[in-house]
Amino acid sequence: MNTGDRIRAERNEESYEGVVLPSSTPDTLVLKLDSGYNVGIDRDEATTTVLDADAYDVDGDSGESHQSAIEFDDDLPTISLISTGGTIASTVDYRTGAVTAQFDAEDILRAVPDLAGMANYRGRVVANILSENMRPDVWQELAHAVHEEIDAGADGIVVMHGTDTMQFTASALSFMLDTPVPIVFTGSQRSADRPSSDNVMNAVCSVETALSDCAEVLVCMHADGSDGRCALHRGTRVRKNHTSRRDAFQTVGAKPLGEVEYESREVSFRRDHASRGDTDLAIRPDLETDVALLKYTPGMDRDLLDLAGESEGLILEGTGLGHVHSDWISSLGEMVNAGTDIVMTSQCLEGRVCDRVYDTGRDLLDAGVIEGEDMLPGTAKVKLMWALANADDVEAIMRQPIAGEITERSTPRQ
Amino acid sequence: MNTGDRIRAERNEESYEGVVLPSSTPDTLVLKLDSGYNVGIDRDEATTTVLDADAYDVDGDSGESHQSAIEFDDDLPTISLISTGGTIASTVDYRTGAVTAQFDAEDILRAVPDLAGMANYRGRVVANILSENMRPDVWQELAHAVHEEIDAGADGIVVMHGTDTMQFTASALSFMLDTPVPIVFTGSQRSADRPSSDNVMNAVCSVETALSDCAEVLVCMHADGSDGRCALHRGTRVRKNHTSRRDAFQTVGAKPLGEVEYESREVSFRRDHASRGDTDLAIRPDLETDVALLKYTPGMDRDLLDLAGESEGLILEGTGLGHVHSDWISSLGEMVNAGTDIVMTSQCLEGRVCDRVYDTGRDLLDAGVIEGEDMLPGTAKVKLMWALANADDVEAIMRQPIAGEITERSTPRQ
Repeated sequence: MNTGDRIRAERNEESYEGVVLPSSTPDTLVLKLDSGYNVGIDRDEATTTVLDADAYDVDGDSGESHQSAIEFDDDLPTISLISTGGTIASTVDYRTGAVTAQFDAEDILRAVPDLAGMANYRGRVVANILSENMRPDVWQELAHAVHEEIDAGADGIVVMHGTDTMQFTASALSFMLDTPVPIVFTGSQRSADRPSSDNVMNAVCSVETALSDCAEVLVCMHADGSDGRCALHRGTRVRKNHTSRRDAFQTVGAKPLGEVEYESREVSFRRDHASRGDTDLAIRPDLETDVALLKYTPGMDRDLLDLAGESEGLILEGTGLGHVHSDWISSLGEMVNAGTDIVMTSQCLEGRVCDRVYDTGRDLLDAGVIEGEDMLPGTAKVKLMWALANADDVEAIMRQPIAGEITERSTPRQ
Repeated sequence: MNTGDRIRAERNEESYEGVVLPSSTPDTLVLKLDSGYNVGIDRDEATTTVLDADAYDVDGDSGESHQSAIEFDDDLPTISLISTGGTIASTVDYRTGAVTAQFDAEDILRAVPDLAGMANYRGRVVANILSENMRPDVWQELAHAVHEEIDAGADGIVVMHGTDTMQFTASALSFMLDTPVPIVFTGSQRSADRPSSDNVMNAVCSVETALSDCAEVLVCMHADGSDGRCALHRGTRVRKNHTSRRDAFQTVGAKPLGEVEYESREVSFRRDHASRGDTDLAIRPDLETDVALLKYTPGMDRDLLDLAGESEGLILEGTGLGHVHSDWISSLGEMVNAGTDIVMTSQCLEGRVCDRVYDTGRDLLDAGVIEGEDMLPGTAKVKLMWALANADDVEAIMRQPIAGEITERSTPRQ
């Protein structure tokens, strides 16, 4: 029995017919059923019969595009689903058992039948990579693809992305694009062959969000441990805060911007946001890729700082309000003088950098280090890459919110 | 009017007499009152009269020790307060206006009168540095000092420490010491010249904890935004999660181990802990300081990895379940073969590293990278420094909980 075979598997009283898919563990048999759903079965517990050996070509032409059998409905809006890879993409990337680099409305509805009737769908593959392998040039490709889809009339975009670095890609698109429609990132923490997979609910809630009035770059993932709601996070304020939970994504320092009730499909927002059509579509995809991020820890080797300081830009993850060892300050001043833009963020993650409280912080500012306000360190890195390629006054742009990445200063507590 | 002058300051209907202390902002006048409390007054709002110019020598001999006027009470336990510097230490480091490197029970009670009657106090200064300047050799000095104080009969230890790197020092002592009594770290997020200063409550709750039955290394800081409770965190599981809030410290992935009600002084614990006297006092202070920590971000320069890989030990802050770019894996294998111990942790901070889920993770394990379980990256760095100097089998010790730094694996969710 091989991948691509059509088989029948019997377990206890139940019987399944479908195509054998590649499985992430040898112990599990994964079948794509005719319903479009995948099912995972313990190999030890199943009796299998091959019905049609090699029924589907799993090495099929990856560039091939398929004619959709789904008709376009003029009364429905159009959503563009763009795949970059990751666990969520495996839901639709298998076309009846074949690995394809293209997919269409038929593939989408076969994978997630619940999406039927919500919109017309266009499918597009930008990449098929694990998100830890995501690179700045793929961010740029993705930005161009999103731009083209919106330009071609898409009423909303859903980007399927691996969860590991989703926050970096969402930040990149937040800075690169002015968008008149929603751009919604979603992913999956549990693959489709697990009973607790979050892929269907995340996909449905993302499409609902892409149909909403919020013309921003958002991340849509499970809001809590149940299957009741997805949370909507600003792309620049979100962080994967847990290695495995389905509700791993959190807006740092605030509640999520909005949420989607799965049952009622209701999309709601807690705070102000850009509305559909407020902004004209625009793209500024240039990036300076020579930017380092360095986290300061006690006893850290100075050589790492010296090397990172040779970059065009450097994000420091300092301690507390934005500190590093006092001995570093004169070196940082020399790096700034030599042309490196250095931005201080905090490894605390919550709260604002403020280097005006202690002498050493003021020395950092005198050395020319830029305060990163309350930007997340990862977001600050992406922004600095973008700012170095797009802004004349890098310091001014780094301290100014341009995509929700800096929250307004609240009244300081006493 | 100069620092060290005894003055009267009048503001609205109120009048204060005290000694002028150095202030962190020129706009604020800080007085040490005869009660021992400090008060901050807006200079613009105050009318001042100098009563006794240069009443106290602010440049007094810093090595001098003072004879305490407080008598030893045989019926009370003895608590050793050890100062390393930071905002909290400024509460007691000013001896009637003088900066001293020694302090005694009298100084302590003058600074925090609420501590009277709780214990006999010994005071000891190990360092007077900002915590971002903390170094591994000071961790060792501190461990020796704590060891000596316990050996000399202290019933509990309170360590005053700057908040920025408190979690690293607390982790270091957790690995270096076996302790039969509580070792309680505390600090202050707001200096004593601010009305909202947390120094008195944190000091009182820390002493109460040092008198308790929990013979572990703990961090005691505000539990929430009010002045009702302090939380007690294991030194190896705590993180400063906010730049400025008084309740910045949080146990990652769980509720705090315990808490102290300020009003009732009741100390309680949620989970099991080592009890007073369970363990004999022991110290293993050796450290390998050539250990790097590197946080992986998309588009990161390989040169930083190559340099960090020359260290004796390397902590990676990977993405998600513990990933880095696939292109790194063969280099990591070479580094391991060349003798570098590499431990994978997750920048998610919550949840467990598990490299057995995806192919690339299994490749990492094949390359010899050690899974850091659910250790915090900073704690893992300190532990690796310690393990390289104290353990024969570094991998085994890194994967085994020795000071609460690894929590037990819960039943995996589906």
